[in-house]
Amino acid sequence: WGSCQMLTIKGINTTVGQEQQAGMKEKQVLEDSEMHLARRDTEGLFQEQPEPGNQYLEDTLLRSYLKTHLPPKVLEEVHQDLERFGNHLLTKIQPLSWECELNPPVFRQFDAWGRRVDHIHTCSAWRRMKEISAEEGLIAEAYEKRYSNWSRLYQAVKLYLFSSSSGGFSCPLAMTDGAAKVIESLGIPEPLKNAFDRLTSRDPEKFWTSGQWMTERRGGSDVANGTETVARKQPDGTYRLYGFKWFTSAADSDMALTLARIADAEGQCTQGSRGLSLFFLRVRDEEGKLNNIQVQRLKDKLGTRQMATAELWLQGARAELISAEGRGVAAISNMLNITRIHNVIGAVASMRRMISLSRDYARKRVAFGKLLKDHPLHVQTIARMEVQVRGAFLLLMDIVRLLGLAETNLASEQEQLLLRLLIPVAKLYTGKQ
Amino acid sequence: WGSCQMLTIKGINTTVGQEQQAGMKEKQVLEDSEMHLARRDTEGLFQEQPEPGNQYLEDTLLRSYLKTHLPPKVLEEVHQDLERFGNHLLTKIQPLSWECELNPPVFRQFDAWGRRVDHIHTCSAWRRMKEISAEEGLIAEAYEKRYSNWSRLYQAVKLYLFSSSSGGFSCPLAMTDGAAKVIESLGIPEPLKNAFDRLTSRDPEKFWTSGQWMTERRGGSDVANGTETVARKQPDGTYRLYGFKWFTSAADSDMALTLARIADAEGQCTQGSRGLSLFFLRVRDEEGKLNNIQVQRLKDKLGTRQMATAELWLQGARAELISAEGRGVAAISNMLNITRIHNVIGAVASMRRMISLSRDYARKRVAFGKLLKDHPLHVQTIARMEVQVRGAFLLLMDIVRLLGLAETNLASEQEQLLLRLLIPVAKLYTGKQ
Amino acid sequence: WGSCQMLTIKGINTTVGQEQQAGMKEKQVLEDSEMHLARRDTEGLFQEQPEPGNQYLEDTLLRSYLKTHLPPKVLEEVHQDLERFGNHLLTKIQPLSWECELNPPVFRQFDAWGRRVDHIHTCSAWRRMKEISAEEGLIAEAYEKRYSNWSRLYQAVKLYLFSSSSGGFSCPLAMTDGAAKVIESLGIPEPLKNAFDRLTSRDPEKFWTSGQWMTERRGGSDVANGTETVARKQPDGTYRLYGFKWFTSAADSDMALTLARIADAEGQCTQGSRGLSLFFLRVRDEEGKLNNIQVQRLKDKLGTRQMATAELWLQGARAELISAEGRGVAAISNMLNITRIHNVIGAVASMRRMISLSRDYARKRVAFGKLLKDHPLHVQTIARMEVQVRGAFLLLMDIVRLLGLAETNLASEQEQLLLRLLIPVAKLYTGKQ
Amino acid sequence: WGSCQMLTIKGINTTVGQEQQAGMKEKQVLEDSEMHLARRDTEGLFQEQPEPGNQYLEDTLLRSYLKTHLPPKVLEEVHQDLERFGNHLLTKIQPLSWECELNPPVFRQFDAWGRRVDHIHTCSAWRRMKEISAEEGLIAEAYEKRYSNWSRLYQAVKLYLFSSSSGGFSCPLAMTDGAAKVIESLGIPEPLKNAFDRLTSRDPEKFWTSGQWMTERRGGSDVANGTETVARKQPDGTYRLYGFKWFTSAADSDMALTLARIADAEGQCTQGSRGLSLFFLRVRDEEGKLNNIQVQRLKDKLGTRQMATAELWLQGARAELISAEGRGVAAISNMLNITRIHNVIGAVASMRRMISLSRDYARKRVAFGKLLKDHPLHVQTIARMEVQVRGAFLLLMDIVRLLGLAETNLASEQEQLLLRLLIPVAKLYTGKQ
Repeated sequence: WGSCQMLTIKGINTTVGQEQQAGMKEKQVLEDSEMHLARRDTEGLFQEQPEPGNQYLEDTLLRSYLKTHLPPKVLEEVHQDLERFGNHLLTKIQPLSWECELNPPVFRQFDAWGRRVDHIHTCSAWRRMKEISAEEGLIAEAYEKRYSNWSRLYQAVKLYLFSSSSGGFSCPLAMTDGAAKVIESLGIPEPLKNAFDRLTSRDPEKFWTSGQWMTERRGGSDVANGTETVARKQPDGTYRLYGFKWFTSAADSDMALTLARIADAEGQCTQGSRGLSLFFLRVRDEEGKLNNIQVQRLKDKLGTRQMATAELWLQGARAELISAEGRGVAAISNMLNITRIHNVIGAVASMRRMISLSRDYARKRVAFGKLLKDHPLHVQTIARMEVQVRGAFLLLMDIVRLLGLAETNLASEQEQLLLRLLIPVAKLYTGKQ
Repeated sequence: WGSCQMLTIKGINTTVGQEQQAGMKEKQVLEDSEMHLARRDTEGLFQEQPEPGNQYLEDTLLRSYLKTHLPPKVLEEVHQDLERFGNHLLTKIQPLSWECELNPPVFRQFDAWGRRVDHIHTCSAWRRMKEISAEEGLIAEAYEKRYSNWSRLYQAVKLYLFSSSSGGFSCPLAMTDGAAKVIESLGIPEPLKNAFDRLTSRDPEKFWTSGQWMTERRGGSDVANGTETVARKQPDGTYRLYGFKWFTSAADSDMALTLARIADAEGQCTQGSRGLSLFFLRVRDEEGKLNNIQVQRLKDKLGTRQMATAELWLQGARAELISAEGRGVAAISNMLNITRIHNVIGAVASMRRMISLSRDYARKRVAFGKLLKDHPLHVQTIARMEVQVRGAFLLLMDIVRLLGLAETNLASEQEQLLLRLLIPVAKLYTGKQ
Repeated sequence: WGSCQMLTIKGINTTVGQEQQAGMKEKQVLEDSEMHLARRDTEGLFQEQPEPGNQYLEDTLLRSYLKTHLPPKVLEEVHQDLERFGNHLLTKIQPLSWECELNPPVFRQFDAWGRRVDHIHTCSAWRRMKEISAEEGLIAEAYEKRYSNWSRLYQAVKLYLFSSSSGGFSCPLAMTDGAAKVIESLGIPEPLKNAFDRLTSRDPEKFWTSGQWMTERRGGSDVANGTETVARKQPDGTYRLYGFKWFTSAADSDMALTLARIADAEGQCTQGSRGLSLFFLRVRDEEGKLNNIQVQRLKDKLGTRQMATAELWLQGARAELISAEGRGVAAISNMLNITRIHNVIGAVASMRRMISLSRDYARKRVAFGKLLKDHPLHVQTIARMEVQVRGAFLLLMDIVRLLGLAETNLASEQEQLLLRLLIPVAKLYTGKQ
Repeated sequence: WGSCQMLTIKGINTTVGQEQQAGMKEKQVLEDSEMHLARRDTEGLFQEQPEPGNQYLEDTLLRSYLKTHLPPKVLEEVHQDLERFGNHLLTKIQPLSWECELNPPVFRQFDAWGRRVDHIHTCSAWRRMKEISAEEGLIAEAYEKRYSNWSRLYQAVKLYLFSSSSGGFSCPLAMTDGAAKVIESLGIPEPLKNAFDRLTSRDPEKFWTSGQWMTERRGGSDVANGTETVARKQPDGTYRLYGFKWFTSAADSDMALTLARIADAEGQCTQGSRGLSLFFLRVRDEEGKLNNIQVQRLKDKLGTRQMATAELWLQGARAELISAEGRGVAAISNMLNITRIHNVIGAVASMRRMISLSRDYARKRVAFGKLLKDHPLHVQTIARMEVQVRGAFLLLMDIVRLLGLAETNLASEQEQLLLRLLIPVAKLYTGKQ
């Protein structure tokens, strides 16, 4: 027989013994005391909760990877920054992400006087995330190339750490990175110089995020057939876009890249992917007025609720053609490759976080008489997951290493082909994992 | 070159041709018209949405199973009822489940004057679901045994159809069925006769649902060690329970079965599963006052938000001992077996619904130039899922067939052993599927 | 010196005396006990809350008015019905009104697939209010004229009692009554016979409520200049309405009366009040499809949140002309008079309820050493309010008495003029009160 | 006959003329065009909305008051600051107040693991308001006395401007000012020095706000009889408070002043106002842990929803006695006087804002053929309100002028008596206005 803590602790037995002598009132008191103590005691019987620490310092595989691959001088600087960043994530960024979770974006279509305003209200914490992204150079790092071919990998590591502690802000960053890459690969033409500078800025005042408006109502994977948006050339050389974009993530962004079909003088346009061209547009003008865009509604999503995803009507939105005519799909493929890599980053970071929490919990939680970590089947399960995420992590690192080489013209032809092959495969594979 | 529908339909080309002659104002009108027409046109370009029909009539496997197995007379009656029920699900029950989704339960701990009330407000639609469950005999059918050993299977089929169209009400039904089974297996002792009659009633006025309060803060799978609730015997032979229940689904139920440790005169109680006894309690008394129970909060769940799951303090709740002392785990195992079967029902029903919607959608949705159903890889994927769900369905049917035999003393010893073995395996397996 | 209940009740003093001998652990227990008891004691120190009873039985002025004025036979029937209705309000209707408060209407503009649906979802309790209104004959009573000239007064008394216990459902009833009155005063022309029967039905299945769409964006009091809606005659003699209604209460109604300007063949229409004609329209067709109406949004109101008030686009809504051309304002004035009276009913009922609660509270609440009712200044304040509401009540009764006479052709010319004068004055005056 | 703009503008008449010749399809197009144009046209028919400007520059009475009363040098500095502040209110502070309105405080009683946390989550904008209050010296100004006897008036003017543009943050400032005043009037004893420095700091990092916990469940105006909280002296000279505070505004404050009854060794305490003493306490300790305080719930208020008002259990909260024993009511009267003045400030500022918006609107809104401002009755109404608010404003200014004199020992005895008399009268009078 074990002893029943609830009643024996703290000498309450004696009071129970006196019960017979006391009148009803005292008895009530004692029973209440007992209830109270019962409550007090059980209040101690909580499970401990898993606690993440500095996610850089605790990630031995990441640290050993960096140690093995980075040149010593780069390693030293990067290590210092990542340690600091790891603390920053824990103490500042994680709480902001919780605030974002509590205050999802709110869409207001009309003002009190009935005027259409289409205002997407985001919370202060979300806007602070944007500033932090600039300050930490989460996009800039990859384009400044301070560490030559290692800059891309360094950026990816920061995004990897950022991903699990920043709620939904990884998504606008993915598209922002993709847009910067597209513009860079177009040689940063003069009309896009300002945009490029802003996308890759470390200055929170200047920093822009970009949307990527691909999906239309009939689209999805089948961009070539599903894109119905029409572009009509204007006398000044710009275009006006007409159409409906069905799923535009980060609808609070400053600019967007999007596909449309250019109509000829007779109003004809080419179907299929050969008809698609790539356009750049600002979402709002300098006064904050929408660029002939109407927001139909925000998506009522199951997850990623921190981020405003909208359905948009383009009703003559001014845009600039930035690919060759009919070469839109080719031009945007750079964006897709970058966002695919961000997808891999997010997938691996999530897996890493889950295992990290599970492992911590296994050291605290008792079931069937011992800690979870002392149950062989539990350890086996975690071990299998650990192996899987390690493989995925190394695949990710190799992809961004190759990308870094390619971006600094250090990649062999085979490495370039390998990179091209690995990106979609890794996205699919880690996404399913 | 294809023609760009947006601009050529309905003779707008000519207006475009007149553009040069018109002044600015007219031009504006025309552009607006164009915008408007663009909008009109794209408004037609929706995907069709998958539409479920009568889920009984469309389920050929279910119908062929019933045809093969049920005696002709039973089949005839059952078929009529299920066809009617299938229509009822589509037109009445499904809309109620949407209303439940829109109006999840709300917990109010205090009234305006500061008094603790612990009121869980459920919406009218949820309360209507309870009435429907009684009217349809979703529990009663299995205990009335109108069709002898086939009654349990017939009940399971109704629950299977009900499951995907009724939002979260399957959960209270599972526990209600389990409680009825426990009481039946105890021989329906006199003090539980009223409860049994209500749990198995077809009268909405009489019908009760039951909770199953198993999980405590340190519990989970490890009921034997995780249960801390203490029961103290009262002079009148009833018990008062003290403890904290961490996850009590369907907290708006009328009664509950729960485990606790009986304290002896010295306040000692036995640890481990040998210390656990099974208790029956009413949640509220006749006036609606809580039975010395406090609701700490409703769980903020990711899914099944229609149903109130609560954390409860038992602070001297009056309860009746219904198992032999120390035989609580054995006594409640009947409940667990029934709720496990309900879990299988829910899992198979969900898979069936998903495939049914996917299949319908594959006949409507065009991608890459043809319907999804004409893409071999898509068909292969659905075919694999279909095979899986068919297997799971037949496993479910066999379990409830065996259960029906066992409940009418028609099962051989081997069938009884098989049933015992299959239930937990099927729960795990279909749950993972 | 008074005694400090918190510490002396229930012999805790002795435990305090033992404090020195006990080690830290025991001390903690005792302090906790003390905290606990402190809590228990203060838990008793609540104010009592005011409780309304049967609002008919408790309203001595109302009862004495009826006794004085109604013929004995009418009084007998009416008394029985009102006593029953008073209980029904307390036990059934009041709880429904709280449920309506908890579940305000929700507007859904698009379905999940992007189709515009403009669905205003109201809760079950709100829909139940509509059924009760029919069952209780809250509109029917005035048109059936079972009690000749007293029927209108009887209806008004029921509405008066209903008003404070039914949340926001008085509003649709006011407009429904007004619409019935307009149709009746037009002689119930054949095309409106069905509508009239439904508005005045006691059958919940048949019963319709009506909206009154007056206010446009530039309107408000100035209907004559503020109404921009245009009506275009169709070959079949019906009209299509184009315009924007800025504040349409009870937007979930079945039908509406509204004003518009008829355009002639050249598209010209008359400005000012001479240009306004009255139209009848159904909000939805038999299949539930909106009658070329778009809901822009629900109003985000400070009060009356139970009721859906909407901004509506009429985009060719089919309507029937029911006044002479240009006589819209004259034709709708019957509606305005009825809704003005409903406004008086609501104002007087609210004042009555406030005083009734205040009076009850004054008998329960102690301040500065005695009950509120024993503070002369408090009694003076309530007495002044009581006098005011009595005057307002008698004014209301006299208006509906006169209306009853007028509606049964028993009113003298002077009474008719008096009625015409009193209605707007009473609306303004009781509204300000 | 006027012309019906909707149909004649922009040459649509001709298209209407062609209607007969066109087939059904074209007709549909034209009707749709018409609908579209109808919509476009009415889209222009909005009322203009009233727009507040710089509320200091536009307030001629305030400016003339300052000009008349302030010494020229003070006036110069104050004018510059107020003009800047007026702009800041318009462009920065007003938007923050809207964000606060959108994100009211959220109370979380338990964490995900079931631990009681009692966390009141306020939004970033609310926390920014606190920083701004420090930066602007909204409390500090009155205690630094840079402008001698004019400092208090200067502070009051800033609060007056701040009040209507800052949502609910005036409330914590009122109590913070009151707490500083109490501590100052006690001679800033050493244990309160830190608190005083923080309450009167301009440094956002240091700045504290204070609560004032007066109302208990039986209290209200009758503090003397309604206060049940008990204080028990601890060996170290501090006290522990036990009781329930029913309405504690700004429950997110850093500290509070509160009343309690000191229990003697026998656990007895004095009833009535003579038994009340004043205590100072910190709400949380340095680690953010609540000072033996439990938050029962946030009040579900009709207005001032931006601000967290809570019901609090004091369960042994550590506190310091800061008045003489039994002199609590006298000591806290300084706080009440200050908060009464803040009440006057808020009342006058609200009236001023309402009239300012009404006046602007009267210059924009047309009804019955002319602007509101050209309707004599409308102007008369506004003029009466204007006179009323001017009187109230001058009363407020005179009170804070006298307070400034009293606080710098420049007030005559008569002025002191006048001040004492005016404060409660002005609070009552302007509050009712």
